[in-house]
Amino acid sequence: MKTYLYPTPAEWATLLERPSLQLNNITNTVQTIMQAVKAFGDAKLFEYTQQFDGVAITNLKVTDQEFIDADLLVDDSLKLAIQTAIKNITTFHAKQQTTIEKIETMPGVECWRKAVGIDKVGLYIPGGTAPLFSTLLMLAIPAKIAGCKEIIVTTPPQKNGNIHPAILFAAKELGINTIFKVGGVQAIAALTYGTESINKVYKIFGPGNQYVTMAKQLALQDGVAIDMPAGPSEVCVWATKDCNTSFVAADLLSQAEHGIDSQVILVTTQEAILADIKNHIQTQLALLPRAAIATVALENSKYFVVENDKEAAELINEYAPEHLIITGEHATTLAESITNAGSIFLGNFSAESIGDYASGTNHTLPTNGYAKMYSGVSVDSFVKKITYQKISNIGLQNIASTVITMAEAEGLQAHANALKIRL
Amino acid sequence: MKTYLYPTPAEWATLLERPSLQLNNITNTVQTIMQAVKAFGDAKLFEYTQQFDGVAITNLKVTDQEFIDADLLVDDSLKLAIQTAIKNITTFHAKQQTTIEKIETMPGVECWRKAVGIDKVGLYIPGGTAPLFSTLLMLAIPAKIAGCKEIIVTTPPQKNGNIHPAILFAAKELGINTIFKVGGVQAIAALTYGTESINKVYKIFGPGNQYVTMAKQLALQDGVAIDMPAGPSEVCVWATKDCNTSFVAADLLSQAEHGIDSQVILVTTQEAILADIKNHIQTQLALLPRAAIATVALENSKYFVVENDKEAAELINEYAPEHLIITGEHATTLAESITNAGSIFLGNFSAESIGDYASGTNHTLPTNGYAKMYSGVSVDSFVKKITYQKISNIGLQNIASTVITMAEAEGLQAHANALKIRL
Repeated sequence: MKTYLYPTPAEWATLLERPSLQLNNITNTVQTIMQAVKAFGDAKLFEYTQQFDGVAITNLKVTDQEFIDADLLVDDSLKLAIQTAIKNITTFHAKQQTTIEKIETMPGVECWRKAVGIDKVGLYIPGGTAPLFSTLLMLAIPAKIAGCKEIIVTTPPQKNGNIHPAILFAAKELGINTIFKVGGVQAIAALTYGTESINKVYKIFGPGNQYVTMAKQLALQDGVAIDMPAGPSEVCVWATKDCNTSFVAADLLSQAEHGIDSQVILVTTQEAILADIKNHIQTQLALLPRAAIATVALENSKYFVVENDKEAAELINEYAPEHLIITGEHATTLAESITNAGSIFLGNFSAESIGDYASGTNHTLPTNGYAKMYSGVSVDSFVKKITYQKISNIGLQNIASTVITMAEAEGLQAHANALKIRL
Repeated sequence: MKTYLYPTPAEWATLLERPSLQLNNITNTVQTIMQAVKAFGDAKLFEYTQQFDGVAITNLKVTDQEFIDADLLVDDSLKLAIQTAIKNITTFHAKQQTTIEKIETMPGVECWRKAVGIDKVGLYIPGGTAPLFSTLLMLAIPAKIAGCKEIIVTTPPQKNGNIHPAILFAAKELGINTIFKVGGVQAIAALTYGTESINKVYKIFGPGNQYVTMAKQLALQDGVAIDMPAGPSEVCVWATKDCNTSFVAADLLSQAEHGIDSQVILVTTQEAILADIKNHIQTQLALLPRAAIATVALENSKYFVVENDKEAAELINEYAPEHLIITGEHATTLAESITNAGSIFLGNFSAESIGDYASGTNHTLPTNGYAKMYSGVSVDSFVKKITYQKISNIGLQNIASTVITMAEAEGLQAHANALKIRL
């Protein structure tokens, strides 16, 4: 834990600097795997799954029977929780659908936009230390609402060759049955180039480790779109005088347990509360199963004490956190000064965990300062908006001189001619 | 011109293949310029402008006096045309603003989104063979509506050291006064890294040649967002039986005059109309000042005759054109089968030129097949949407068991603890 008391704004950029992702030294490894899958397809998927996940799978695609078996392995309480989360996430994301509004910009010139689901999308669900069925909800629900026709899920198998049953249960609840047991770079390669079993897609979504991140960058260069650039998860807590220091400690820890590179930041004008928060962290940390991971992340955590609310907001906007918790009863007012953040949690009861799972908002959010220019995943991420214009004969008369004059001024006579010939 | 009569769907992908951008052989050149600007700032901008634009400029930033001088050089008819275009484009884009709608996903759990303008954006307006003041309108109007605080325009100077007066007039009309006389890779580098005169930005917009395209890719790798990947401009005309073959010829030519690499595609079920269209092209081409450019582009143009409307739509969706013109009185109905296109022009009077300049829709659109997953530029491109959630004590009671159950199932005990400690 590093504490910075009243740093000057000139110092902020340096103090807020994130550790840079060292991707260059893995480029060759990732490129080799990508090219091998491109060249040899499924055979390489089996081979890499054996090599990296340590399991010899017999079928890439999850079978109907596997879905049925999984259903028996999920507790009723977890089923109910997943169903509740699906309901809330669906309620929130369904409102992101847009309706068509025709606009007559001048008499006889009618223009509109229509959101159309991206035909083929790939959802990558990481394996690793936790079975992230919540990520499947966060990606598949907006994809479904957007009307994507082909939704392909890839996720690495467990050591027993199966996919975690909660992931299969969640998929089934959402009406998704195209799931492949493949993870890592090889999964991204399959979605990018296609194999015998896995169709190539137009856009790839989902988090992953540095190898997956690098693979998505290479996919982007090869013409596939991706959701957003990725980095380690982050929380920033803006702790006010009326915060509950024990809650703040719990929120900082919930981010710290994600990974040793998790970013944990506290900003406050109240120097007096720091000691309390640090004490609560030590007490709570001792009880956590993932204490080892959280301890490493906490070593790099930063505590800023600043002069006033204005400085707090400016520092936070400079950092542009993925998650921002603002405590206290004036949280909503304080939030008005925030322009750069992925998702904001307002008031003492709004733990980040609630948004991670079930409040309804999306948990796939911009990290690494990208909240300055990227949004989190939403229905928008799964559609493209086509524009339309329909010009009547009257409209043509009304707009022709404008277009002809501009085209000729730009030296584009054929553009002008396309109007003149119609007049 | 190449004519393909009734190709089988299996042949489409090959026949529709676009020439691949050969960017790799320019990577080193572009990288050298980018790094030089990063290291030496303004000095390199002056040096490269002398070297590449052939002009020794004395000031990078356009002065107030230059704006005043430009105003005297623009014809009243062009001023009126630009003002009319601004009005239509503003009318269409203003409707893309979103309002905040608070959604209670469950009692006591309130979620919403807010669109916030990206603080700092850079607009690149190419120079070259045409002074593209229309592109300035298409980028600056949505940036203004989005509420971007800092809008920086860069555009290469003419041989006389000035910016084309129509560009300055358009900027003034839009309330934009931060314009720098710098183009090419060096402009993208300045916007990416900042120099003494030019602030670095969070997102770069605008078209350009292959060097600018490559520079934007490198900017993206260095953490700056870009509008979309770029390629040569394209039109596809779906010509119906009731089309006007002379209009169709004019529309194909208006795309062909853009550049020798422009993509010009015709799709029809009516073999009989082809000869007429080709005749009109020859007649109209002879009269064009940019005939030399159009002739080269037309050599690579492709004419597809297909079996029926369903095949026509499928072929077009496979190609995913930047601009799609659908002729005839049933154009709107035919358009319902199109899922991949940037902007669609409906009926015999809807020339693409109208959308290029003044119908109100944006002319910055996805090329190179990217219409499968990218939208054209809109107000959306200039904002990020922050999500918010405010959970009351009641809300906490309602959602706690869902979150705790899911967090524990994912093995994230600190996430669960952030709820338990609040209960």
